[in-house]
Amino acid sequence: MSGSEMDEQAERGAHHVQSLARGLAVITAFGPDTPELTLSEVARETGMTRAAARRFLLTLVDLGYVRTDGKQFALTARVLELGYAYLSSQSLPEVAQPHLERLSAEVGESSSVSVLDGGFVVYVARAAVTRIMTVGISVGTRFPAFATSMGQVLLAELEAAALADALAASGLARLTTRTITSAERLREQLRVVREQGWAVVDQELEEGLRSVAAPIRDRAGRVVAAANIATHASRFSAAALESELLPRLLLACKGIEGDLRTRR
Amino acid sequence: MSGSEMDEQAERGAHHVQSLARGLAVITAFGPDTPELTLSEVARETGMTRAAARRFLLTLVDLGYVRTDGKQFALTARVLELGYAYLSSQSLPEVAQPHLERLSAEVGESSSVSVLDGGFVVYVARAAVTRIMTVGISVGTRFPAFATSMGQVLLAELEAAALADALAASGLARLTTRTITSAERLREQLRVVREQGWAVVDQELEEGLRSVAAPIRDRAGRVVAAANIATHASRFSAAALESELLPRLLLACKGIEGDLRTRR
Repeated sequence: MSGSEMDEQAERGAHHVQSLARGLAVITAFGPDTPELTLSEVARETGMTRAAARRFLLTLVDLGYVRTDGKQFALTARVLELGYAYLSSQSLPEVAQPHLERLSAEVGESSSVSVLDGGFVVYVARAAVTRIMTVGISVGTRFPAFATSMGQVLLAELEAAALADALAASGLARLTTRTITSAERLREQLRVVREQGWAVVDQELEEGLRSVAAPIRDRAGRVVAAANIATHASRFSAAALESELLPRLLLACKGIEGDLRTRR
Repeated sequence: MSGSEMDEQAERGAHHVQSLARGLAVITAFGPDTPELTLSEVARETGMTRAAARRFLLTLVDLGYVRTDGKQFALTARVLELGYAYLSSQSLPEVAQPHLERLSAEVGESSSVSVLDGGFVVYVARAAVTRIMTVGISVGTRFPAFATSMGQVLLAELEAAALADALAASGLARLTTRTITSAERLREQLRVVREQGWAVVDQELEEGLRSVAAPIRDRAGRVVAAANIATHASRFSAAALESELLPRLLLACKGIEGDLRTRR
């Protein structure tokens, strides 16, 4: 065990299995823009030595999660089984998908459903509209909740302590000139979102990206997820998001809620 | 390191990181029917001691992949990020989804797309029809290829050596009275599938389950995936699968192939 590993061991507590953490970091080193990586690239991406990165990669090859031609490494479809138990235990993605497809076909814009994980939204269902300028978002994508419309809808439901934890987890980094980076202003914004029952985010996550989101509630009225429509700023003004897209989005949320109730 | 771990280390080669293999086994111990597990259940499921299972579970809690109330453990949405890099690097699932939704709406039956992983099919896209009797299949589900219609379509394209490897990986277990368990009979069946360009599987995987599958080809004519429609035996005869469902399925495959070509 190296010195830095011992430091991390001490920080994390005696139970911590460092090899597991590092192996998972190798899996997440692969990304939409880097589906193939060399040994050196994995080492650089994960901050490991080449020797360590090689051991983890070859173990993942043994286990069938990674394939290699000897030089380039890539994930195999087997990595999906790691998320399978989670997805298959949730009826939400399957229930939401046809509603999102219908919504996206109607409005000509991509729509998604996400849940909150700490301070981040995680996409669990998505209907993408094919355009020349596509957005690299799929099931499993994560964004800091505070700067997204779905995230604001989900954060708006949290108790004060849980909200503080979530904001501490994500931080309040300035992502564009429009990002709300003051916790006080954000809390005010979340009060508005909770009262009106929807959120519009206007280029707070990325320049040119506008979206509108609304909550999906279970039978008991608890918010379990959020749905959104995302569009380029050149296609819909913030006012048009509210007047044209929001009514359709609210209908889709009602449809999902109805199907969730009959499923459970 | 215990005796059995040393044996496995010797078998796997000096590079093998046993802790990573065991940690991933903990993640896959959770399933659709067991979304929550106790420490003892994880230990039993993975064949580890309770002490070892506890270390792996608490490490996964540290890393945010598992949550616990102190007694029950469950995966969080963060496990989706482990499959995210794979899914987002593939345009197939996103391209196929709207075609599957349309197909399922037309025929009133669930449809799916899968790829081959060793001797198994892995579902990468799915449009499920809501029925009282639902099937626990989602993105990431795996079945032995030889007993499924999509698997037979995919196996039919393999060279002799690759086919032998795939069948060795999955085995040819008798799953129902109709399962083809002879390698020779299966090879004959795959020749028929390759020639006709589609496969019908009649209760070979599960009693009461019939499905029809066809290949999805890339620009160069290589089979990259298969699509299917699955139905209960009481709703469609094997003949009706061919006469009524197959033509719609082939149209959907053509649509997916067309969209894949414009995307790449």
